[in-house]
Amino acid sequence: MLFFTQCFGAVLDLIHLRFQHYKAKRVFSAAGQLVCVVNPTHSLKYAPTRCAAAQTSTEQGILPPCHHHETVHDSQLVPCTCPLFSCPWEGHLEVVVSHLRQTHRINILQGAEIVFLATDMHLPAPIDWIIMHSCLGHQFLLVLRKQEKYEGHPQFFATMMLIGTPTQANNFTYRLELNRNQRRLKWEATPRSVLECVDSVISDGDCLVLNTSLAQLFSDNGSLAIGIAITTSKVHSGEAEM
Amino acid sequence: MLFFTQCFGAVLDLIHLRFQHYKAKRVFSAAGQLVCVVNPTHSLKYAPTRCAAAQTSTEQGILPPCHHHETVHDSQLVPCTCPLFSCPWEGHLEVVVSHLRQTHRINILQGAEIVFLATDMHLPAPIDWIIMHSCLGHQFLLVLRKQEKYEGHPQFFATMMLIGTPTQANNFTYRLELNRNQRRLKWEATPRSVLECVDSVISDGDCLVLNTSLAQLFSDNGSLAIGIAITTSKVHSGEAEM
Repeated sequence: MLFFTQCFGAVLDLIHLRFQHYKAKRVFSAAGQLVCVVNPTHSLKYAPTRCAAAQTSTEQGILPPCHHHETVHDSQLVPCTCPLFSCPWEGHLEVVVSHLRQTHRINILQGAEIVFLATDMHLPAPIDWIIMHSCLGHQFLLVLRKQEKYEGHPQFFATMMLIGTPTQANNFTYRLELNRNQRRLKWEATPRSVLECVDSVISDGDCLVLNTSLAQLFSDNGSLAIGIAITTSKVHSGEAEM
Repeated sequence: MLFFTQCFGAVLDLIHLRFQHYKAKRVFSAAGQLVCVVNPTHSLKYAPTRCAAAQTSTEQGILPPCHHHETVHDSQLVPCTCPLFSCPWEGHLEVVVSHLRQTHRINILQGAEIVFLATDMHLPAPIDWIIMHSCLGHQFLLVLRKQEKYEGHPQFFATMMLIGTPTQANNFTYRLELNRNQRRLKWEATPRSVLECVDSVISDGDCLVLNTSLAQLFSDNGSLAIGIAITTSKVHSGEAEM
């Protein structure tokens, strides 16, 4: 009996997932766009000291600092870039993707334009929605975070980071787009490198920021669909060619 | 001597204004865009009860209610729509523009696309920047408000309202665009009617919302340049033709 109940629950979950998938497709009607349903992950332990830890290690000559646009040599080790966990892992940039996939089970998606469908937006802060995006020969990390910068007033912060150096990140532009009910909000910027802490990007407010009320306006049935597109930054490409 | 000092001050103000004008033109490089420098206006008295007052009057059969998408007949009187002052004026929609120009000295600009350059963003909340925009045969009211929804944390709210009925407002789409330093933020929506209180639009958060940090990222020398464009909403135009 318990087995059948569980089976029935699983079928219901699948139907719910399929319904959300359909809804997201309806919101972003462009044909051929990949919709990815992303469930939230509660932080096991927030590590606001990761930047500080990296900084301390740098002072000891091991890790790159968390400063903006700092060049990092391949020979240097980087700490785990997953914003969710205070993970003790360190490794080269080339193996960060496989670490995030294998250890933190973060999905990776292919395609120039995808739809990130974050579910259960109502869950209490702090909470993150994370996915990797493979595009234009590079991997990007999309982080949507619900956080209370001001106590009792949760906000949503969305940013895209390149799993690469700040110099490489300067060659790209990412766009996040919310589109629902005759309203549209677009944010375009140069991605930051994962070597710069996501915490500092969010505390600087240099990302897409949504109040709870605005997030609710764009949400549909508790899910928020964010259209993502990545392009090469022409200005920087030009500079790179010079 | 005092006369010469005042003259010198006026010349300095003009140079400062010209410099801001040049800066805005540099930010929005599209040729032929009109740049309007808008100085802030402190509220003489905030009137959060205006909606309530209108509501009460409506119950008495005098004024239209502050509900969304309410149709208003020309024969009805509307209260003063200027969000700055608790102005006792009432009049027909057709004379709201002349009232706002003459009594509240709000400028009116022509053109499909203009740049709204709000100065002195650092001034403490509550504060408003207001302008009227004449376009596509209608007049619109652009309101940028700095307000503390949460004590100690001022935010910026920008919205566009049609000086017309909600039914007329449904025929348009407005776009507000911030563009600076390789970052771009766009908000597109259907304008609300001035018959719906600007206070309720802002408290609903159904507008462009900027945290102080984000506003600073887009500001240049204490001024925020907002590109404004208004278009006819095709879907609604189609519906109107049916």
